[in-house]
Amino acid sequence: MSSVSIIGSGSMASAIGALALKGGNTVEITGRDRAKAQALASALGNGATVGTWGTAPAGDIVILAVLFDSAVPIVSEYGDALANKIVVDITNPFNASATGLAIPHDTSIAQKVAEAAPASAHIVKAFNTLFRDVLAAGGPLDVFVAGDDAQAKASVSAFIESLGLRPQDTGDLSMAHWLEGAGLLSVGLANHGVGSLNFSLGVKQG
Amino acid sequence: MSSVSIIGSGSMASAIGALALKGGNTVEITGRDRAKAQALASALGNGATVGTWGTAPAGDIVILAVLFDSAVPIVSEYGDALANKIVVDITNPFNASATGLAIPHDTSIAQKVAEAAPASAHIVKAFNTLFRDVLAAGGPLDVFVAGDDAQAKASVSAFIESLGLRPQDTGDLSMAHWLEGAGLLSVGLANHGVGSLNFSLGVKQG
Repeated sequence: MSSVSIIGSGSMASAIGALALKGGNTVEITGRDRAKAQALASALGNGATVGTWGTAPAGDIVILAVLFDSAVPIVSEYGDALANKIVVDITNPFNASATGLAIPHDTSIAQKVAEAAPASAHIVKAFNTLFRDVLAAGGPLDVFVAGDDAQAKASVSAFIESLGLRPQDTGDLSMAHWLEGAGLLSVGLANHGVGSLNFSLGVKQG
Repeated sequence: MSSVSIIGSGSMASAIGALALKGGNTVEITGRDRAKAQALASALGNGATVGTWGTAPAGDIVILAVLFDSAVPIVSEYGDALANKIVVDITNPFNASATGLAIPHDTSIAQKVAEAAPASAHIVKAFNTLFRDVLAAGGPLDVFVAGDDAQAKASVSAFIESLGLRPQDTGDLSMAHWLEGAGLLSVGLANHGVGSLNFSLGVKQG
């Protein structure tokens, strides 16, 4: 059982929050617009609470379920309120046409978040290759994970398993660059070979 | 049925050559070391022939089954001998520790090959996310494909289907950068979450 705070009130927050509650975790929803956060918490039910924006989240695991260009500013705004937290970045920095990434070539949103977060926080990239509706439906999906701290990755992996999903560790946080690229590949597949959003990238045992 | 020339005599050349012959395609093997190419062609049997290094390949589809840092030099050396060919780049530009890519951040080996090849050649990235032994075993594997020319991609996709594999179009050749990153992710998974080379990345229908 994990204690999870979700920053964001959108569809990814809703999908992860619902799975988290179903998996027996405690969930706090926090949004800059408290009314929206409250509405999501109420919709989720099952004891979901509402947090106060900019203050220390209740959860040990803090999921940044925001648009990619808000991730670093929000982490900066939170500052020391994120001390000792495990921060999970799920964002995809797609450019306007979703044909490339709007990040410098030698980094990732996850690494930028790590730079902006307190030194005691541990950043994990996860969930970004999963389309919202596929994630919401749950099932045996692979959740690709990257991070520098083994214990933080183990905590996030246990949380992922509680959702009925499969954590797949890809390595250290520098792999977040390529996971963000895998998010772009997923969009490419949706627009070309697969032709729909109804799929996920995964590991197939040989 | 495709007419395929494989440049290279190593394990990927062997794996693709064997599947290609089984799928009813004609296969020519060409290597700088003609004796090695002849040995592979003989081992493959089923009418596999040996080509002459640096001259126009017999196949309409030319598979560059060489180490990544040889791909561009070889294409340059072949020059106009590759006119009008579909050139398939399967390489992975791993750095020495296989924790990053030994390419500039804004390109890929496939795009470098396209710059070096005659303007009438069409470059397709494919096969690079598949580990050698998994590919050799065949089966319902996903082969991620990227390329700028729709007809060339269709030809390569038909060839892939003849191998009993599934082509998955990811978009234009710029996606080769992220496919090369997906090759790196596969190594990361092998070294971390999966713990073996006995898997493939694939598309799971939702």
